Amino acid sequence: MRRLLFEMAYQGARYHGYQVQKNARSVAETVQDAVEAVFGRREGITGCSRTDAGVHAAQYFFHMDTESRIPTDAAVRALNVNLPRDIAILSCREVPPDFHARYSVVWKEYTYKIWNGPVRSPFLAGMALMHPYPLDAGLMDRCAREFTGIHDFRGFCSTGSKAKPTHLDGGESTVRTVFSAAVRREGEMILFTVRGDGFLYNMVRIMAGTLLLTGVGKLAPGDLTDIIASGDRARAGVTAPPEGLYLTRVSYIPYGQQKEGDPNG
Amino acid sequence: MRRLLFEMAYQGARYHGYQVQKNARSVAETVQDAVEAVFGRREGITGCSRTDAGVHAAQYFFHMDTESRIPTDAAVRALNVNLPRDIAILSCREVPPDFHARYSVVWKEYTYKIWNGPVRSPFLAGMALMHPYPLDAGLMDRCAREFTGIHDFRGFCSTGSKAKPTHLDGGESTVRTVFSAAVRREGEMILFTVRGDGFLYNMVRIMAGTLLLTGVGKLAPGDLTDIIASGDRARAGVTAPPEGLYLTRVSYIPYGQQKEGDPNG
Repeated sequence: MRRLLFEMAYQGARYHGYQVQKNARSVAETVQDAVEAVFGRREGITGCSRTDAGVHAAQYFFHMDTESRIPTDAAVRALNVNLPRDIAILSCREVPPDFHARYSVVWKEYTYKIWNGPVRSPFLAGMALMHPYPLDAGLMDRCAREFTGIHDFRGFCSTGSKAKPTHLDGGESTVRTVFSAAVRREGEMILFTVRGDGFLYNMVRIMAGTLLLTGVGKLAPGDLTDIIASGDRARAGVTAPPEGLYLTRVSYIPYGQQKEGDPNG
Repeated sequence: MRRLLFEMAYQGARYHGYQVQKNARSVAETVQDAVEAVFGRREGITGCSRTDAGVHAAQYFFHMDTESRIPTDAAVRALNVNLPRDIAILSCREVPPDFHARYSVVWKEYTYKIWNGPVRSPFLAGMALMHPYPLDAGLMDRCAREFTGIHDFRGFCSTGSKAKPTHLDGGESTVRTVFSAAVRREGEMILFTVRGDGFLYNMVRIMAGTLLLTGVGKLAPGDLTDIIASGDRARAGVTAPPEGLYLTRVSYIPYGQQKEGDPNG
Protein backbone atom coordinates (compact mmCIF):
# COMPACT_ATOMS: atom_id res chain seq x y z
CA MET A 1 0.00 0.00 0.00
CA ARG A 2 1.33 3.44 -0.96
CA ARG A 3 0.15 6.86 0.23
CA LEU A 4 0.19 9.35 -2.63
CA LEU A 5 0.00 13.11 -2.09
CA PHE A 6 -1.48 15.03 -5.01
CA GLU A 7 -1.16 18.76 -5.60
CA MET A 8 -3.95 20.34 -7.63
CA ALA A 9 -5.53 23.65 -8.66
CA TYR A 10 -9.16 24.34 -9.44
CA GLN A 11 -11.53 27.08 -10.43
CA GLY A 12 -14.46 26.77 -8.01
CA ALA A 13 -17.13 28.61 -10.04
CA ARG A 14 -18.92 25.47 -11.25
CA TYR A 15 -18.67 23.50 -7.98
CA HIS A 16 -20.55 23.48 -4.70
CA GLY A 17 -17.31 23.50 -2.76
CA TYR A 18 -14.59 20.92 -2.27
CA GLN A 19 -16.40 18.46 -0.02
CA VAL A 20 -18.63 15.69 -1.41
CA GLN A 21 -22.31 16.44 -0.81
CA LYS A 22 -25.69 15.18 -1.89
CA ASN A 23 -27.42 16.68 -4.92
CA ALA A 24 -24.58 19.04 -5.79
CA ARG A 25 -21.40 18.63 -7.81
CA SER A 26 -18.25 18.99 -5.71
CA VAL A 27 -14.54 19.11 -6.57
CA ALA A 28 -13.85 15.97 -4.49
CA GLU A 29 -16.53 13.94 -6.27
CA THR A 30 -15.21 15.06 -9.66
CA VAL A 31 -11.68 14.02 -8.67
CA GLN A 32 -12.95 10.67 -7.37
CA ASP A 33 -14.61 10.03 -10.75
CA ALA A 34 -11.24 10.62 -12.45
CA VAL A 35 -9.47 8.40 -9.88
CA GLU A 36 -11.94 5.61 -10.59
CA ALA A 37 -11.33 5.95 -14.33
CA VAL A 38 -7.54 5.82 -13.91
CA PHE A 39 -7.08 3.39 -10.99
CA GLY A 40 -9.97 1.10 -11.88
CA ARG A 41 -11.60 1.47 -8.47
CA ARG A 42 -13.12 4.29 -6.45
CA GLU A 43 -10.55 5.24 -3.79
CA GLY A 44 -11.26 7.58 -0.89
CA ILE A 45 -9.35 10.86 -0.99
CA THR A 46 -8.53 13.11 1.97
CA GLY A 47 -8.28 16.82 1.27
CA CYS A 48 -6.22 19.47 3.07
CA SER A 49 -9.11 21.83 3.61
CA ARG A 50 -12.76 22.47 2.90
CA THR A 51 -13.54 25.25 0.49
CA ASP A 52 -16.99 26.76 0.02
CA ALA A 53 -19.02 26.89 -3.19
CA GLY A 54 -17.38 29.24 -5.69
CA VAL A 55 -14.03 29.39 -3.83
CA HIS A 56 -10.88 28.57 -5.83
CA ALA A 57 -7.57 26.89 -5.09
CA ALA A 58 -4.27 27.67 -6.78
CA GLN A 59 -2.62 25.05 -4.55
CA TYR A 60 -4.55 22.26 -2.88
CA PHE A 61 -3.37 18.86 -1.60
CA PHE A 62 -5.16 15.59 -1.08
CA HIS A 63 -3.81 12.16 -0.20
CA MET A 64 -4.95 8.72 -1.27
CA ASP A 65 -3.91 5.20 -0.28
CA THR A 66 -3.60 2.78 -3.16
CA GLU A 67 -2.14 -0.61 -4.05
CA SER A 68 -1.61 0.58 -7.62
CA ARG A 69 2.04 0.72 -8.71
CA ILE A 70 1.44 3.44 -11.31
CA PRO A 71 4.39 5.88 -11.47
CA THR A 72 3.55 9.26 -9.95
CA ASP A 73 4.12 11.24 -13.16
CA ALA A 74 1.91 8.84 -15.14
CA ALA A 75 -0.82 9.27 -12.50
CA VAL A 76 -0.68 13.05 -12.98
CA ARG A 77 -1.04 12.81 -16.75
CA ALA A 78 -3.80 10.18 -16.62
CA LEU A 79 -5.86 12.09 -14.05
CA ASN A 80 -5.60 15.32 -16.04
CA VAL A 81 -6.94 13.55 -19.14
CA ASN A 82 -9.96 12.45 -17.09
CA LEU A 83 -10.64 15.76 -15.33
CA PRO A 84 -12.62 18.73 -16.64
CA ARG A 85 -10.50 21.69 -17.69
CA ASP A 86 -11.28 23.75 -14.57
CA ILE A 87 -9.43 21.22 -12.38
CA ALA A 88 -5.75 20.32 -12.89
CA ILE A 89 -3.44 17.93 -11.04
CA LEU A 90 -0.08 19.71 -10.70
CA SER A 91 2.08 17.00 -9.12
CA CYS A 92 2.10 13.71 -7.20
CA ARG A 93 4.58 12.17 -4.78
CA GLU A 94 4.69 9.23 -2.42
CA VAL A 95 4.60 10.18 1.28
CA PRO A 96 5.07 8.17 4.52
CA PRO A 97 1.92 6.46 5.84
CA ASP A 98 1.73 8.85 8.82
CA PHE A 99 1.73 11.90 6.56
CA HIS A 100 -1.76 13.39 6.38
CA ALA A 101 -3.03 15.97 3.87
CA ARG A 102 -4.97 17.80 6.60
CA TYR A 103 -3.25 17.07 9.94
CA SER A 104 0.30 17.59 8.67
CA VAL A 105 -0.43 21.16 7.57
CA VAL A 106 1.69 23.82 9.33
CA TRP A 107 0.18 26.85 7.72
CA LYS A 108 -2.13 27.82 4.87
CA GLU A 109 -2.20 30.94 2.76
CA TYR A 110 -5.31 32.48 1.26
CA THR A 111 -5.50 35.32 -1.24
CA TYR A 112 -8.60 37.44 -1.75
CA LYS A 113 -8.74 39.15 -5.16
CA ILE A 114 -10.58 42.44 -5.71
CA TRP A 115 -10.83 43.81 -9.25
CA ASN A 116 -10.80 47.58 -8.75
CA GLY A 117 -11.07 48.84 -12.34
CA PRO A 118 -13.76 51.37 -13.29
CA VAL A 119 -15.73 48.63 -15.11
CA ARG A 120 -15.98 44.94 -14.24
CA SER A 121 -13.66 42.60 -16.14
CA PRO A 122 -15.57 40.04 -18.26
CA PHE A 123 -12.45 37.85 -18.19
CA LEU A 124 -12.53 37.56 -14.39
CA ALA A 125 -16.25 36.77 -14.05
CA GLY A 126 -16.54 34.47 -11.02
CA MET A 127 -12.82 34.80 -10.30
CA ALA A 128 -12.57 38.09 -8.39
CA LEU A 129 -14.81 40.48 -6.46
CA MET A 130 -15.69 43.38 -8.76
CA HIS A 131 -15.40 46.70 -6.89
CA PRO A 132 -15.55 49.63 -9.35
CA TYR A 133 -15.23 52.41 -6.72
CA PRO A 134 -11.91 53.83 -5.45
CA LEU A 135 -10.04 51.81 -2.83
CA ASP A 136 -6.88 52.96 -1.01
CA ALA A 137 -4.74 49.81 -1.16
CA GLY A 138 -1.97 51.44 0.90
CA LEU A 139 -4.38 52.14 3.75
CA MET A 140 -5.85 48.63 3.45
CA ASP A 141 -2.32 47.23 3.76
CA ARG A 142 -1.59 49.23 6.96
CA CYS A 143 -4.85 47.95 8.48
CA ALA A 144 -4.36 44.34 7.29
CA ARG A 145 -1.15 44.10 9.31
CA GLU A 146 -3.25 44.41 12.49
CA PHE A 147 -4.52 40.87 11.85
CA THR A 148 -0.99 39.50 12.45
CA GLY A 149 -0.36 37.66 15.73
CA ILE A 150 -2.15 35.27 18.08
CA HIS A 151 -5.73 36.49 18.46
CA ASP A 152 -9.13 35.21 19.41
CA PHE A 153 -10.86 35.69 16.04
CA ARG A 154 -14.40 34.87 17.23
CA GLY A 155 -15.57 38.21 15.78
CA PHE A 156 -14.33 37.01 12.35
CA CYS A 157 -16.33 33.81 12.23
CA SER A 158 -19.78 33.21 10.76
CA THR A 159 -22.32 32.90 13.57
CA GLY A 160 -23.67 29.42 14.16
CA SER A 161 -20.46 27.79 12.94
CA LYS A 162 -18.73 25.31 15.19
CA ALA A 163 -15.18 26.21 16.18
CA LYS A 164 -12.55 23.75 15.02
CA PRO A 165 -9.64 22.53 17.19
CA THR A 166 -6.39 24.43 16.71
CA HIS A 167 -3.08 22.70 16.03
CA LEU A 168 -1.69 23.65 19.41
CA ASP A 169 -4.27 22.86 22.03
CA GLY A 170 -6.39 20.27 20.25
CA GLY A 171 -9.50 21.66 21.91
CA GLU A 172 -12.23 23.87 20.57
CA SER A 173 -11.02 27.40 20.37
CA THR A 174 -11.41 30.49 18.24
CA VAL A 175 -7.78 31.48 18.80
CA ARG A 176 -5.67 31.40 15.65
CA THR A 177 -2.17 32.53 14.79
CA VAL A 178 -1.86 34.79 11.75
CA PHE A 179 1.75 34.82 10.58
CA SER A 180 1.33 37.51 7.95
CA ALA A 181 -1.39 39.65 6.40
CA ALA A 182 -0.84 42.22 3.68
CA VAL A 183 -2.57 44.03 0.81
CA ARG A 184 -0.91 44.99 -2.48
CA ARG A 185 -2.10 46.52 -5.73
CA GLU A 186 -1.10 45.09 -9.12
CA GLY A 187 -2.62 47.43 -11.68
CA GLU A 188 -6.38 47.25 -11.30
CA MET A 189 -6.22 44.16 -9.04
CA ILE A 190 -5.99 44.43 -5.26
CA LEU A 191 -4.73 41.29 -3.50
CA PHE A 192 -5.16 40.56 0.21
CA THR A 193 -2.88 37.71 1.31
CA VAL A 194 -3.00 36.08 4.74
CA ARG A 195 -1.07 33.14 6.22
CA GLY A 196 -2.06 31.37 9.42
CA ASP A 197 -2.02 28.08 11.29
CA GLY A 198 -5.75 27.72 10.72
CA PHE A 199 -8.83 29.73 9.84
CA LEU A 200 -12.34 29.82 11.31
CA TYR A 201 -15.38 29.39 9.06
CA ASN A 202 -15.56 32.35 6.65
CA MET A 203 -12.70 34.07 8.50
CA VAL A 204 -10.79 35.23 5.42
CA ARG A 205 -13.95 36.43 3.69
CA ILE A 206 -14.94 38.46 6.77
CA MET A 207 -11.38 39.86 6.97
CA ALA A 208 -11.71 40.87 3.28
CA GLY A 209 -15.14 42.45 3.88
CA THR A 210 -13.70 44.42 6.80
CA LEU A 211 -10.67 45.56 4.77
CA LEU A 212 -13.09 46.94 2.15
CA LEU A 213 -14.41 49.27 4.89
CA THR A 214 -10.85 50.50 5.51
CA GLY A 215 -10.30 50.94 1.76
CA VAL A 216 -13.19 53.41 1.51
CA GLY A 217 -12.24 55.20 4.76
CA LYS A 218 -15.08 53.89 6.95
CA LEU A 219 -12.52 52.29 9.28
CA ALA A 220 -9.12 53.75 10.18
CA PRO A 221 -5.79 52.27 11.33
CA GLY A 222 -6.21 50.96 14.87
CA ASP A 223 -9.89 50.11 14.40
CA LEU A 224 -9.18 46.50 13.38
CA THR A 225 -7.21 45.92 16.57
CA ASP A 226 -10.25 47.15 18.55
CA ILE A 227 -12.70 45.05 16.53
CA ILE A 228 -10.59 41.88 16.97
CA ALA A 229 -10.37 42.58 20.74
CA SER A 230 -14.12 43.16 20.97
CA GLY A 231 -14.89 39.72 19.54
CA ASP A 232 -18.06 41.30 18.13
CA ARG A 233 -19.05 39.88 14.72
CA ALA A 234 -21.39 42.86 14.18
CA ARG A 235 -18.45 45.33 14.25
CA ALA A 236 -16.55 43.51 11.48
CA GLY A 237 -17.52 43.92 7.82
CA VAL A 238 -19.81 41.73 5.78
CA THR A 239 -18.65 38.34 4.53
CA ALA A 240 -17.10 39.09 1.13
CA PRO A 241 -18.43 36.88 -1.70
CA PRO A 242 -16.73 33.54 -2.44
CA GLU A 243 -15.58 34.29 -6.00
CA GLY A 244 -12.64 36.43 -4.78
CA LEU A 245 -11.20 33.77 -2.47
CA TYR A 246 -8.28 31.50 -3.40
CA LEU A 247 -6.42 28.96 -1.30
CA THR A 248 -2.95 29.84 -2.60
CA ARG A 249 -0.44 27.86 -0.54
CA VAL A 250 -0.36 24.95 1.90
CA SER A 251 2.82 24.33 3.90
CA TYR A 252 3.55 20.97 5.51
CA ILE A 253 5.72 19.51 8.26
CA PRO A 254 9.00 18.64 6.54
CA TYR A 255 9.85 14.95 6.20
CA GLY A 256 13.50 14.57 5.21
CA GLN A 257 13.42 10.82 4.69
CA GLN A 258 11.52 10.95 1.39
CA LYS A 259 13.73 10.71 -1.67
CA GLU A 260 11.37 13.00 -3.60
CA GLY A 261 11.87 15.80 -1.06
CA ASP A 262 9.28 17.48 1.08
CA PRO A 263 6.02 18.77 -0.39
CA ASN A 264 7.01 22.38 0.29
CA GLY A 265 9.99 22.10 -2.09
CA MET B 1 -31.04 61.38 -33.82
CA ARG B 2 -27.65 60.70 -32.23
CA ARG B 3 -25.06 58.10 -33.25
CA LEU B 4 -23.47 56.56 -30.17
CA LEU B 5 -20.24 54.55 -30.32
CA PHE B 6 -19.87 51.98 -27.56
CA GLU B 7 -16.64 50.30 -26.50
CA MET B 8 -17.02 46.89 -24.88
CA ALA B 9 -15.15 43.75 -23.83
CA TYR B 10 -16.45 40.21 -23.70
CA GLN B 11 -15.44 36.68 -22.89
CA GLY B 12 -16.64 34.61 -25.84
CA ALA B 13 -16.74 31.16 -24.19
CA ARG B 14 -20.53 31.09 -23.72
CA TYR B 15 -21.46 32.67 -27.06
CA HIS B 16 -21.74 31.44 -30.62
CA GLY B 17 -19.80 34.42 -31.86
CA TYR B 18 -20.61 38.11 -32.12
CA GLN B 19 -23.13 38.06 -34.94
CA VAL B 20 -26.85 37.40 -34.34
CA GLN B 21 -27.87 33.95 -35.58
CA LYS B 22 -30.77 31.55 -35.32
CA ASN B 23 -30.92 28.98 -32.52
CA ALA B 24 -27.69 30.11 -30.85
CA ARG B 25 -26.91 32.83 -28.32
CA SER B 26 -24.68 35.57 -29.71
CA VAL B 27 -22.97 38.57 -28.14
CA ALA B 28 -24.92 40.99 -30.38
CA GLU B 29 -28.28 39.52 -29.40
CA THR B 30 -27.35 39.70 -25.71
CA VAL B 31 -26.35 43.36 -26.11
CA GLN B 32 -29.57 44.13 -27.98
CA ASP B 33 -31.56 42.65 -25.09
CA ALA B 34 -29.78 45.03 -22.71
CA VAL B 35 -30.31 47.96 -25.12
CA GLU B 36 -34.03 47.17 -25.22
CA ALA B 37 -34.18 47.11 -21.41
CA VAL B 38 -32.39 50.47 -21.10
CA PHE B 39 -33.69 52.41 -24.14
CA GLY B 40 -37.21 50.99 -24.07
CA ARG B 41 -36.98 49.78 -27.67
CA ARG B 42 -34.92 47.30 -29.63
CA GLU B 43 -32.36 49.31 -31.61
CA GLY B 44 -30.14 47.86 -34.30
CA ILE B 45 -26.44 47.84 -33.47
CA THR B 46 -23.55 47.73 -35.93
CA GLY B 47 -20.38 45.99 -34.78
CA CYS B 48 -16.77 46.62 -35.84
CA SER B 49 -16.05 43.00 -36.67
CA ARG B 50 -17.39 39.48 -36.65
CA THR B 51 -15.85 37.14 -34.12
CA ASP B 52 -16.32 33.36 -34.17
CA ALA B 53 -17.81 31.19 -31.43
CA GLY B 54 -15.50 31.13 -28.41
CA VAL B 55 -13.40 34.12 -29.56
CA HIS B 56 -12.97 37.00 -27.08
CA ALA B 57 -12.67 40.78 -27.35
CA ALA B 58 -10.74 43.01 -24.96
CA GLN B 59 -11.76 45.99 -27.12
CA TYR B 60 -14.76 45.94 -29.43
CA PHE B 61 -16.83 48.81 -30.80
CA PHE B 62 -20.41 49.01 -32.03
CA HIS B 63 -22.51 52.01 -33.01
CA MET B 64 -26.21 52.63 -32.57
CA ASP B 65 -28.54 55.40 -33.71
CA THR B 66 -31.02 56.58 -31.13
CA GLU B 67 -33.40 59.44 -30.36
CA SER B 68 -32.81 58.90 -26.64
CA ARG B 69 -31.15 61.82 -24.85
CA ILE B 70 -29.63 59.64 -22.13
CA PRO B 71 -26.13 60.91 -21.14
CA THR B 72 -23.35 58.64 -22.41
CA ASP B 73 -22.00 57.76 -18.94
CA ALA B 74 -25.50 56.87 -17.72
CA ALA B 75 -25.94 54.62 -20.78
CA VAL B 76 -22.72 52.76 -19.87
CA ARG B 77 -23.83 52.15 -16.30
CA ALA B 78 -27.38 51.13 -17.24
CA LEU B 79 -26.24 48.70 -19.94
CA ASN B 80 -23.74 47.05 -17.60
CA VAL B 81 -26.48 46.47 -15.03
CA ASN B 82 -28.50 44.68 -17.73
CA LEU B 83 -25.65 42.62 -19.20
CA PRO B 84 -24.30 39.27 -17.99
CA ARG B 85 -20.97 39.48 -16.22
CA ASP B 86 -18.98 38.12 -19.17
CA ILE B 87 -19.82 41.23 -21.24
CA ALA B 88 -18.91 44.77 -20.13
CA ILE B 89 -19.50 48.15 -21.75
CA LEU B 90 -16.30 50.17 -21.24
CA SER B 91 -17.27 53.57 -22.65
CA CYS B 92 -19.70 55.46 -24.86
CA ARG B 93 -19.34 58.62 -26.92
CA GLU B 94 -21.36 60.49 -29.52
CA VAL B 95 -19.88 60.34 -33.03
CA PRO B 96 -20.75 62.13 -36.31
CA PRO B 97 -23.46 60.45 -38.40
CA ASP B 98 -20.94 59.44 -41.08
CA PHE B 99 -18.76 57.63 -38.54
CA HIS B 100 -19.20 53.86 -38.88
CA ALA B 101 -18.09 51.19 -36.39
CA ARG B 102 -16.93 48.92 -39.23
CA TYR B 103 -16.10 51.13 -42.22
CA SER B 104 -14.18 53.77 -40.23
CA VAL B 105 -11.68 51.20 -38.90
CA VAL B 106 -8.05 51.88 -39.92
CA TRP B 107 -6.47 48.86 -38.30
CA LYS B 108 -7.32 46.07 -35.90
CA GLU B 109 -5.08 44.20 -33.49
CA TYR B 110 -5.57 40.57 -32.48
CA THR B 111 -3.71 38.69 -29.77
CA TYR B 112 -3.49 34.91 -29.65
CA LYS B 113 -2.76 33.53 -26.16
CA ILE B 114 -0.95 30.22 -25.62
CA TRP B 115 -0.57 28.92 -22.06
CA ASN B 116 2.75 27.09 -22.12
CA GLY B 117 3.02 25.82 -18.54
CA PRO B 118 3.70 22.12 -17.83
CA VAL B 119 0.06 21.65 -16.72
CA ARG B 120 -3.05 23.40 -18.05
CA SER B 121 -4.31 26.36 -16.01
CA PRO B 122 -7.83 25.80 -14.60
CA PHE B 123 -8.18 29.59 -14.31
CA LEU B 124 -7.72 30.06 -18.06
CA ALA B 125 -10.12 27.33 -19.19
CA GLY B 126 -11.65 28.58 -22.46
CA MET B 127 -9.43 31.68 -22.40
CA ALA B 128 -6.13 30.45 -23.87
CA LEU B 129 -4.81 27.55 -25.91
CA MET B 130 -3.19 25.06 -23.51
CA HIS B 131 0.15 23.82 -24.92
CA PRO B 132 2.13 21.93 -22.24
CA TYR B 133 5.14 21.10 -24.43
CA PRO B 134 8.20 23.34 -24.87
CA LEU B 135 7.89 26.26 -27.29
CA ASP B 136 10.73 28.58 -28.32
CA ALA B 137 9.06 32.00 -28.09
CA GLY B 138 12.19 33.77 -29.38
CA LEU B 139 12.15 31.69 -32.54
CA MET B 140 8.39 32.18 -32.92
CA ASP B 141 8.97 35.93 -32.70
CA ARG B 142 11.63 35.90 -35.45
CA CYS B 143 9.26 33.95 -37.70
CA ALA B 144 6.18 36.06 -36.84
CA ARG B 145 7.92 39.15 -38.20
CA GLU B 146 7.80 37.56 -41.68
CA PHE B 147 4.04 38.21 -41.70
CA THR B 148 4.70 41.98 -41.76
CA GLY B 149 4.06 43.80 -45.03
CA ILE B 150 1.62 43.78 -47.92
CA HIS B 151 1.00 40.15 -48.85
CA ASP B 152 -1.56 38.00 -50.59
CA PHE B 153 -2.64 35.89 -47.60
CA ARG B 154 -4.81 33.44 -49.55
CA GLY B 155 -2.82 30.56 -47.98
CA PHE B 156 -3.88 31.84 -44.55
CA CYS B 157 -7.61 31.74 -45.16
CA SER B 158 -10.08 28.95 -44.47
CA THR B 159 -11.02 27.26 -47.74
CA GLY B 160 -14.51 27.98 -48.99
CA SER B 161 -14.59 31.41 -47.37
CA LYS B 162 -15.41 34.41 -49.51
CA ALA B 163 -12.76 37.10 -49.60
CA LYS B 164 -13.85 40.47 -48.25
CA PRO B 165 -13.04 43.82 -49.95
CA THR B 166 -9.96 45.57 -48.58
CA HIS B 167 -10.02 49.20 -47.49
CA LEU B 168 -7.88 50.30 -50.38
CA ASP B 169 -9.27 48.78 -53.53
CA GLY B 170 -12.84 48.06 -52.48
CA GLY B 171 -12.81 44.90 -54.55
CA GLU B 172 -12.51 41.26 -53.57
CA SER B 173 -8.95 40.47 -52.75
CA THR B 174 -6.92 38.32 -50.40
CA VAL B 175 -4.22 40.98 -50.14
CA ARG B 176 -3.88 42.45 -46.67
CA THR B 177 -1.39 44.79 -45.03
CA VAL B 178 0.10 43.56 -41.75
CA PHE B 179 1.65 46.51 -39.92
CA SER B 180 3.24 44.46 -37.14
CA ALA B 181 3.44 40.88 -35.92
CA ALA B 182 5.39 39.74 -32.87
CA VAL B 183 5.54 37.02 -30.22
CA ARG B 184 6.53 37.56 -26.59
CA ARG B 185 6.62 35.38 -23.49
CA GLU B 186 5.24 36.59 -20.14
CA GLY B 187 6.02 33.81 -17.68
CA GLU B 188 4.11 30.74 -18.82
CA MET B 189 2.00 32.71 -21.31
CA ILE B 190 3.06 33.21 -24.93
CA LEU B 191 1.33 36.07 -26.76
CA PHE B 192 1.21 36.51 -30.52
CA THR B 193 0.08 40.02 -31.47
CA VAL B 194 -0.71 41.14 -35.01
CA ARG B 195 -1.99 44.43 -36.41
CA GLY B 196 -3.37 44.84 -39.88
CA ASP B 197 -5.79 46.76 -42.08
CA GLY B 198 -8.02 43.70 -42.27
CA PHE B 199 -7.96 39.95 -41.81
CA LEU B 200 -9.28 37.07 -43.90
CA TYR B 201 -11.54 34.44 -42.37
CA ASN B 202 -9.57 32.49 -39.70
CA MET B 203 -6.36 34.28 -40.80
CA VAL B 204 -5.05 34.99 -37.27
CA ARG B 205 -5.88 31.48 -36.07
CA ILE B 206 -4.04 29.94 -39.07
CA MET B 207 -1.10 32.30 -38.40
CA ALA B 208 -1.08 31.09 -34.76
CA GLY B 209 -1.27 27.44 -35.83
CA THR B 210 1.66 27.99 -38.19
CA LEU B 211 3.71 29.76 -35.51
CA LEU B 212 3.22 26.71 -33.27
CA LEU B 213 5.09 24.72 -35.93
CA THR B 214 7.98 27.20 -35.72
CA GLY B 215 7.90 27.01 -31.90
CA VAL B 216 8.59 23.27 -31.95
CA GLY B 217 11.20 23.54 -34.73
CA LYS B 218 9.13 22.04 -37.57
CA LEU B 219 9.43 25.29 -39.51
CA ALA B 220 12.50 27.56 -39.57
CA PRO B 221 13.04 31.28 -40.20
CA GLY B 222 12.41 31.98 -43.88
CA ASP B 223 9.82 29.22 -44.22
CA LEU B 224 6.89 31.53 -43.46
CA THR B 225 7.97 33.88 -46.26
CA ASP B 226 7.93 30.90 -48.65
CA ILE B 227 4.56 29.64 -47.39
CA ILE B 228 2.98 33.09 -47.77
CA ALA B 229 4.41 33.36 -51.32
CA SER B 230 3.12 29.88 -52.23
CA GLY B 231 -0.47 30.82 -51.33
CA ASP B 232 -0.93 27.16 -50.41
CA ARG B 233 -3.27 26.61 -47.46
CA ALA B 234 -1.94 23.05 -47.05
CA ARG B 235 1.58 24.33 -46.29
CA ALA B 236 0.43 26.56 -43.40
CA GLY B 237 -0.41 25.10 -39.99
CA VAL B 238 -3.78 24.00 -38.69
CA THR B 239 -6.35 26.59 -37.62
CA ALA B 240 -5.62 27.15 -33.92
CA PRO B 241 -8.70 26.82 -31.67
CA PRO B 242 -10.88 29.87 -30.98
CA GLU B 243 -10.36 30.09 -27.19
CA GLY B 244 -6.89 31.64 -27.57
CA LEU B 245 -8.03 34.48 -29.85
CA TYR B 246 -8.73 38.02 -28.62
CA LEU B 247 -9.61 41.12 -30.59
CA THR B 248 -7.44 43.51 -28.54
CA ARG B 249 -7.53 46.88 -30.29
CA VAL B 250 -9.50 48.71 -32.95
CA SER B 251 -8.11 51.96 -34.34
CA TYR B 252 -10.31 54.48 -36.14
CA ILE B 253 -10.00 57.35 -38.56
CA PRO B 254 -9.49 60.42 -36.33
CA TYR B 255 -12.28 62.97 -36.28
CA GLY B 256 -11.02 66.17 -34.67
CA GLN B 257 -14.34 67.97 -34.64
CA GLN B 258 -15.81 65.95 -31.78
CA LYS B 259 -15.59 67.63 -28.40
CA GLU B 260 -15.15 64.25 -26.72
CA GLY B 261 -12.01 63.54 -28.72
CA ASP B 262 -11.40 60.72 -31.11
CA PRO B 263 -12.13 57.12 -30.13
CA ASN B 264 -8.46 56.18 -30.25
CA GLY B 265 -7.69 58.52 -27.32
